[in-house]
Amino acid sequence: MTEFSIVELRKLHDVACNVARIAGNYLREDQLRRRKVALTTREKLNSVDLVTAADEGVEKIIKDSILKEYPDHAFIGEESYSAGQEKRFLLKDGPTWIVDPIDGTVNMVHMFPMTAISIGFCLESIPTVGVVFAPFLGGQGTLYSAIRHPEGGAWLSEFGPDGPSTPLPLTSPPPPLPADAPKGCLFFGEYGKDRRDSPQSNLTKKAANFVNMATEIGGRGGKGGMVHGIRSLGSSTMDMVYVASGQGDIMFEAGCWEWDVCAGIAILLQTGGIVVDSNPPTDLKDSDPIPMANLGGRRYLAIRACSEDVNGRSPRAQQEALVREVWKRTERLDYQRPV
Amino acid sequence: MTEFSIVELRKLHDVACNVARIAGNYLREDQLRRRKVALTTREKLNSVDLVTAADEGVEKIIKDSILKEYPDHAFIGEESYSAGQEKRFLLKDGPTWIVDPIDGTVNMVHMFPMTAISIGFCLESIPTVGVVFAPFLGGQGTLYSAIRHPEGGAWLSEFGPDGPSTPLPLTSPPPPLPADAPKGCLFFGEYGKDRRDSPQSNLTKKAANFVNMATEIGGRGGKGGMVHGIRSLGSSTMDMVYVASGQGDIMFEAGCWEWDVCAGIAILLQTGGIVVDSNPPTDLKDSDPIPMANLGGRRYLAIRACSEDVNGRSPRAQQEALVREVWKRTERLDYQRPV
Repeated sequence: MTEFSIVELRKLHDVACNVARIAGNYLREDQLRRRKVALTTREKLNSVDLVTAADEGVEKIIKDSILKEYPDHAFIGEESYSAGQEKRFLLKDGPTWIVDPIDGTVNMVHMFPMTAISIGFCLESIPTVGVVFAPFLGGQGTLYSAIRHPEGGAWLSEFGPDGPSTPLPLTSPPPPLPADAPKGCLFFGEYGKDRRDSPQSNLTKKAANFVNMATEIGGRGGKGGMVHGIRSLGSSTMDMVYVASGQGDIMFEAGCWEWDVCAGIAILLQTGGIVVDSNPPTDLKDSDPIPMANLGGRRYLAIRACSEDVNGRSPRAQQEALVREVWKRTERLDYQRPV
Repeated sequence: MTEFSIVELRKLHDVACNVARIAGNYLREDQLRRRKVALTTREKLNSVDLVTAADEGVEKIIKDSILKEYPDHAFIGEESYSAGQEKRFLLKDGPTWIVDPIDGTVNMVHMFPMTAISIGFCLESIPTVGVVFAPFLGGQGTLYSAIRHPEGGAWLSEFGPDGPSTPLPLTSPPPPLPADAPKGCLFFGEYGKDRRDSPQSNLTKKAANFVNMATEIGGRGGKGGMVHGIRSLGSSTMDMVYVASGQGDIMFEAGCWEWDVCAGIAILLQTGGIVVDSNPPTDLKDSDPIPMANLGGRRYLAIRACSEDVNGRSPRAQQEALVREVWKRTERLDYQRPV
């Protein structure tokens, strides 16, 4: 196994933060140009999945900068992956960067600021360093990052590269989950790109899941979850970091890919959150511990960090109980990938 | 009719921006305190409608500051209105401030940054000055504002009170609406507080509306709108300003109140957007011009500013055509108020 010291991880983190800001500035300049010229886009899967020249430009900036510093590391980027024919999960055990140059491309096209550059670094297939930079969120952009290590940490930086950072989770210690969660939780989920009109389509099931989570307790055949709110931002990266930072409680998303969530998962794990499969494993007993999500599994259910509650339940016990409550209220989604 | 010169309106705008920033700083300090103590909340309608001490504190800050400067103006604030028994629409023709001290209270409780202070000023019941400040969005907060006047304007300020502002709409001139809109549009809507499980509940209808807007063209019995995305932020104030600024295309929201949208409507109208009733008027013919929404009507469908399209359609013609396309795809919602 490749060992990285905290000093090496800090350097990796700094490299990633730096390149994220450089790429973010490139996007901000691009947006300034767009105020004069309409953006050229070509359509991928359908009109919901937009690629812009900026996407590819940003991936090149990030890839070149990282491989210049770490020429023997592997690099998986959304744009180069999607352009290829290979759709299997490519992650190996060695040091690997997993990058989405622009998550929330649709938002960027519309100038809605929930767009992020997501730079994750994995060791042994586990997200270990994560940097998520939202260049349009606030005048200086908003950067979430983490180093997973006992001497690491997680931070929110919203005052520019030389400004102060706030440790994450934002509330420290994080509050227990609500006793009757999901009631009282803030829930993040997306409609996604599969827009087929059929009772079994992912759109139909996702929409039903959201209604279940929102409905009063007792409603929807007992599936009503009475969450505080359903939020859809159009960026699974941002959904994940809001839960990682404790600015949301539950992130339920299927259909996205490892580059959308890798960096966010590093932050989530460092703050004390968990991420599992959004479909319950078929052979899981009620008393079994819940395994972590497969990074390449395209289905993610994340729960924020919390502290022991008044009944003495551990954070993990509360988080797993909430996972089971969400599973009860949601239909299985049909996203796979070749193995 | 009360006449206000552009000089007087500029002063009103500056007073509103200043008090919004003071109130926003109060909220930021409050959030810093919360990182140590759990917030005290009491529940209003149900757990989705939270009031915090901060809500009432902020309304008092705003009301006192404004009435000190303008003692003979009327003031309608969410908190004082809601505490009373009177639920009718109170707006009179004279100079009137309409204020929501905190829109997106649920978000604020969870520290999700889509929370805004909304300060609107009406003349003859028409929103004339609007200031929306989101104190948690970016390190300096994010401020949208407008003065409705030929010599007025609309601005985004995200670099603090002394930093530069960007004129709105962000893209100038604003692009035409998509030729096959709502396809290609970014759509903002909220699930709201009515969580009853019934086929006729507003939750059920809103969720169906969102699915219609998202589904492929031809789907849902012809109602499929294939929008680029559905966004739910948990703040109708923020939904409205994103459309007002051209960072979104359509805002469809029912159940909120005039203080949630008054300031945003001032910005929307100044940039060239329109706002109409989200329920189609029952006696409206296809050839009739579409009237503006009733400010107190609790149902709002806003469309962003646009330029003449390649077929020579005027902005207004494109906007009204899009309104009719949205009406075709959405069920009527049941929100009323006493008259």
